[in-house]
Amino acid sequence: MDEAAAPRRYRADRLEAFVASAFAAVDVPPDDARAVAELMVRADLSGSEGHGIFRLPHYIRRIRAGGINVRPEIRIEREKAATALIDGDNGIGHLVVRRAAEIAIQKAEHCGVAWVGINHGNHAGPAFLYASMPLEKDMVGLYSAVGSANHVPPWGGTEMLLSTNPIAAAIPAHDEPPLVMDMATTVASYGKVKIAAQRGETMPEGWMIDKEGNPLTDPTRAAEGFLLPIGGYKGYALALVLGLLAGTLNSAAMGRDVIDFNADDVTTTNTGQFMVAISIEAFCEVETFKKQVDQVIREMHSSPRLPGVERIRVPGERSHEIRQERSRTGIPVHDVLKRGLDALAADLGIPGLPA
Amino acid sequence: MDEAAAPRRYRADRLEAFVASAFAAVDVPPDDARAVAELMVRADLSGSEGHGIFRLPHYIRRIRAGGINVRPEIRIEREKAATALIDGDNGIGHLVVRRAAEIAIQKAEHCGVAWVGINHGNHAGPAFLYASMPLEKDMVGLYSAVGSANHVPPWGGTEMLLSTNPIAAAIPAHDEPPLVMDMATTVASYGKVKIAAQRGETMPEGWMIDKEGNPLTDPTRAAEGFLLPIGGYKGYALALVLGLLAGTLNSAAMGRDVIDFNADDVTTTNTGQFMVAISIEAFCEVETFKKQVDQVIREMHSSPRLPGVERIRVPGERSHEIRQERSRTGIPVHDVLKRGLDALAADLGIPGLPA
Repeated sequence: MDEAAAPRRYRADRLEAFVASAFAAVDVPPDDARAVAELMVRADLSGSEGHGIFRLPHYIRRIRAGGINVRPEIRIEREKAATALIDGDNGIGHLVVRRAAEIAIQKAEHCGVAWVGINHGNHAGPAFLYASMPLEKDMVGLYSAVGSANHVPPWGGTEMLLSTNPIAAAIPAHDEPPLVMDMATTVASYGKVKIAAQRGETMPEGWMIDKEGNPLTDPTRAAEGFLLPIGGYKGYALALVLGLLAGTLNSAAMGRDVIDFNADDVTTTNTGQFMVAISIEAFCEVETFKKQVDQVIREMHSSPRLPGVERIRVPGERSHEIRQERSRTGIPVHDVLKRGLDALAADLGIPGLPA
Repeated sequence: MDEAAAPRRYRADRLEAFVASAFAAVDVPPDDARAVAELMVRADLSGSEGHGIFRLPHYIRRIRAGGINVRPEIRIEREKAATALIDGDNGIGHLVVRRAAEIAIQKAEHCGVAWVGINHGNHAGPAFLYASMPLEKDMVGLYSAVGSANHVPPWGGTEMLLSTNPIAAAIPAHDEPPLVMDMATTVASYGKVKIAAQRGETMPEGWMIDKEGNPLTDPTRAAEGFLLPIGGYKGYALALVLGLLAGTLNSAAMGRDVIDFNADDVTTTNTGQFMVAISIEAFCEVETFKKQVDQVIREMHSSPRLPGVERIRVPGERSHEIRQERSRTGIPVHDVLKRGLDALAADLGIPGLPA
């Protein structure tokens, strides 16, 4: 890459301070603003740029339009020993899911496992953020959500009734980094399609089809088609089941009720999510388990490779490397994003990021 | 189809009696023999022929070789309020998982959710059998297992270190049949490949690749290649995570430790599975939930369709129809299977199925 074209990099704490000041400027309480900022920047730190500070102008726009409640009373609506249903009171998604994760961890300490559902949440960034929260307590984390816009029809159909409903899991290892899966149930995410369009690239067959069922490879025509689920009807089944568990079970939006939060800044999304924490010591010795996970990871790494494959990875490995690299060298902020953040800062009357 | 070629059909209770007598002949206690028979025949009744009585000769062979314990002491090895780890004592897989499902349901009644892991289990037939067990208590069921032979390499690799680790979920509806997903994490199951070979058919590209990474479409060459996971690295991630949760977490086999139960009748497989029960009333009113599930199902059904698509289904719909049809007309037993069961009956000295 041309040295002159390399994006400016910022330390994570510098970006966090900026994001927190933006939220504070629209009346988010300082502690909440810092908490959301930290989670958003953690997304960028791990290479999930599409779910990090890139979303800040959108979140702020929605808050200003009254579509997000900046002073939510997040409360437990129903509760059993190992479950809770959280009413997020239309608060910023990150705060609501973080609260759900805390409750899940606490309950799993007593019960061995806990399942916490959410209604009236909002878009909360990448799924791995929350699935990873139980790791430090030697727990496995699982997380899923109803996505914030429908992009997927039922298998064989043309009406977009399902989102790319993601599923994430985080499993601790001993010497290896934790194994962290975070995947949409479609072959490609909508973000990948947008990036292909920006770059003037053609999409491979298998990402999208049009309403006639033909492969759609021109990303500028994305609005005429829809995303394909992984494994055809299998990914459809997964998206549907996850939607029923993250949405319907929690009295949150699912199917035709889902609000497209890209197109509508005002209507309460009633986003649903669920968070599961599983205590390892409820099943085996923690140390033994972590070493076994190391062994499984090393087995995968050591498999003979297909021609042209340089290296076999396990889920979360690349994010881990990016996180380590960016912790040292900072988080790249590309020109277009920088200009958007500068405009936002001017608009909010807060200091922008240094040039 | 030629009328003369139509397979003979048997009522479910007739097949159950035969299967139970076969197990009894190899010293399985009568109650256990009946319980396994009922579950195996339920697989056939629902159209899962590859996991039903078709497996009987194999199970009996393994029992006679000492590879399955017919008098297991299935016991709880670890326990918390909402979790248990079951040591199946190398018993018949169906008995062990059924026990795990019972415990999960019982614990979820008190705690709202329960997660029960298994070690020293065995192949237990189709995943939907167990995921469906919590339905009658107005609970959602989830089930996964480490498969009984490795067919999948890590993404980019050529060593088969993973099974097609299936995942099943069952969600009750009100007037609609329950939504029941049961899927392997590969594009095609190994059973489908075997059927294509039997019929002399070519496989579509995308099912398998060979060790050079080229599409493998000749099913008679299946041993030279491996199954492809759904969504490429995503299906690999799913199979790996499910394997760690169903196997490693339960101190059961995973990765290189997995015994190929097709090739080895003697070695204890130490099969791992997990079963989750989620109480609906821990999250919302049961009646309301079921009606919402109806609505989501009907939304899917009512989507406009792609050209050539006659009908949109939800997971479990076809199995439900087959189950209704076969409950009336009986379960078809093809010639080859009939001859295998006749040979088994002769061998065990029990009456065979009527001609």
